Amino acid sequence: MSNVVNAPERVAPDTLARVQAQIELLGYQPSRAAQTLKQERAGAWGIELNSAGFGRLGAILDTFLIELTTGAAGHGSHVVPFTAPDPLDPLPAYERFVASRVADGFVLTDTRTSDPRPAWLDAHHVPYAAFGRVWDDPGVTSWVDVDGAAGIDAAVRHLAEQGYERIGYLGWPEGSPVGDDRRSGWARATADLGIAHPEWQATTPQVIDAASSAAAGLIDAVGTGGALVCASDALALGAWRVLVERGLEPGVDVGLVGFDDTDIAQALDLSSLHQPLDQVAERVLHVLGTRADSRDPSVGGLLLDPELVIRSSSKPAGDRTKRKEK
Amino acid sequence: MSNVVNAPERVAPDTLARVQAQIELLGYQPSRAAQTLKQERAGAWGIELNSAGFGRLGAILDTFLIELTTGAAGHGSHVVPFTAPDPLDPLPAYERFVASRVADGFVLTDTRTSDPRPAWLDAHHVPYAAFGRVWDDPGVTSWVDVDGAAGIDAAVRHLAEQGYERIGYLGWPEGSPVGDDRRSGWARATADLGIAHPEWQATTPQVIDAASSAAAGLIDAVGTGGALVCASDALALGAWRVLVERGLEPGVDVGLVGFDDTDIAQALDLSSLHQPLDQVAERVLHVLGTRADSRDPSVGGLLLDPELVIRSSSKPAGDRTKRKEK
Repeated sequence: MSNVVNAPERVAPDTLARVQAQIELLGYQPSRAAQTLKQERAGAWGIELNSAGFGRLGAILDTFLIELTTGAAGHGSHVVPFTAPDPLDPLPAYERFVASRVADGFVLTDTRTSDPRPAWLDAHHVPYAAFGRVWDDPGVTSWVDVDGAAGIDAAVRHLAEQGYERIGYLGWPEGSPVGDDRRSGWARATADLGIAHPEWQATTPQVIDAASSAAAGLIDAVGTGGALVCASDALALGAWRVLVERGLEPGVDVGLVGFDDTDIAQALDLSSLHQPLDQVAERVLHVLGTRADSRDPSVGGLLLDPELVIRSSSKPAGDRTKRKEK
Repeated sequence: MSNVVNAPERVAPDTLARVQAQIELLGYQPSRAAQTLKQERAGAWGIELNSAGFGRLGAILDTFLIELTTGAAGHGSHVVPFTAPDPLDPLPAYERFVASRVADGFVLTDTRTSDPRPAWLDAHHVPYAAFGRVWDDPGVTSWVDVDGAAGIDAAVRHLAEQGYERIGYLGWPEGSPVGDDRRSGWARATADLGIAHPEWQATTPQVIDAASSAAAGLIDAVGTGGALVCASDALALGAWRVLVERGLEPGVDVGLVGFDDTDIAQALDLSSLHQPLDQVAERVLHVLGTRADSRDPSVGGLLLDPELVIRSSSKPAGDRTKRKEK
């Protein structure tokens, strides 16, 4: 049947005439959507949304979803979100999406150690591209990520140039690849600059109250004229709260830099590292398109630098003196 | 052709035999996806995402999208996000989605006065359901909304019961239907309780710096022992900042209630009004399903009450005294 409609030149004239007559008789109408289907393409990429990592303070996945949606439309495709009933065991949700052919492939976010998804998708020949490195398996290259270590490194150098003397780090507990990567940027830059003090660090989960408690001791340690670089804007908010409660002005008494350039950073005038999510989305779509067309998994991983957005929480020393003399 | 495959009993036996022979010859395989297509259903609902109202502090649409995605899966459908290149003229984006049959209907958010979408969708017989009243046209009933006035009313009564004496309102500039509705709850409750002071209000756009400026004067007006009800958690954060900078403790010196129960409210331990987004999503999907099945536009609008989540920013007078004596 498909040849009669799509490639009549390949069908014997006799067969062609008879089937075309049936088509006319029975009112069969080829539709563009049905023809797309025959190419076995849904024209859509699935993306798992997770209430723990989406729409939360300091999360940037909602902005990423908008960039991805807009970018996909430019490529004639769509993005179809789904949720896993059990986020700790997401594979059944991926399997259901593959079986129902709703999506041609997946955008992975929140990549983690022992992530079961890349191997499963590879085994089932389902194309994917990850926003986030596949940390366990350097052989997997279908990813785009933002270089957190480079970003934190740049924040430390910026604070040092502004004249802040003791630069501490407020990060997440050890063991998360993203967190450990960001901390390594602080360790590297302070070592390079000859201002390394490994004890000027504190860890806290991504909860503002806990961040305030952790920041309090660190602020005591670096003191006035010191500065904190934070693994996220949520942690920076925790530190900001301690400063304000103590009557200290961020950027004047103690420097402060966050990560993610969220609404919070903009609202509180905090310097912060901005992830180039438009470029991440564009690259993810490029990798997906390439893999879907050629089943070629050799598209390389790509690491993008975040951009340091400088606001009043990291003023230069001259401005700080002026402000204080007022 | 479709009758031969899907309803062979409706086709003359002669025709049936001939076409079935062709089907066998040419290897035509009916697929479940193709059969769904023939029913002219994409099995998906479109939703416009807008970077101004999505993923922002105090916005709840990212959480709503997760609820909608999870709920749709329970109904065997999907949600397909899209963005309008020009958010002020969104109709071309809707038109493109309808033409390409990616979605069977739409979930509208961010309903506003002079919203062109309901009339356009009605004229094109495209089912939709709105999260948000269609403010201009009470005849349109395909909506679910949260009763902001009732929520703010409950917050005022709660603060009065806790012993706060002067209750002010920090809201958005007049003219937005959602904002005016929320303010009306404050006006109504304070009038009912005999504690109306129309001058104890201030307006500010949804920007934290501006909210702090507006809150400063209002905090002067209500003074210690007074309280502020805010149109959003973002405005409450602006007020919270002023209190902390002045060395005043929220809930001890001045009561504070926000709206939306965001991460910010949870992080700063602010009482806030929680929108029942799971119920909103379920109702939106019910309205859509009903309209798509029966083209029956008579499903009524539904107004749900938000739930007041009480935290330390609205402590009872007894606790406040105890705290102060410490």
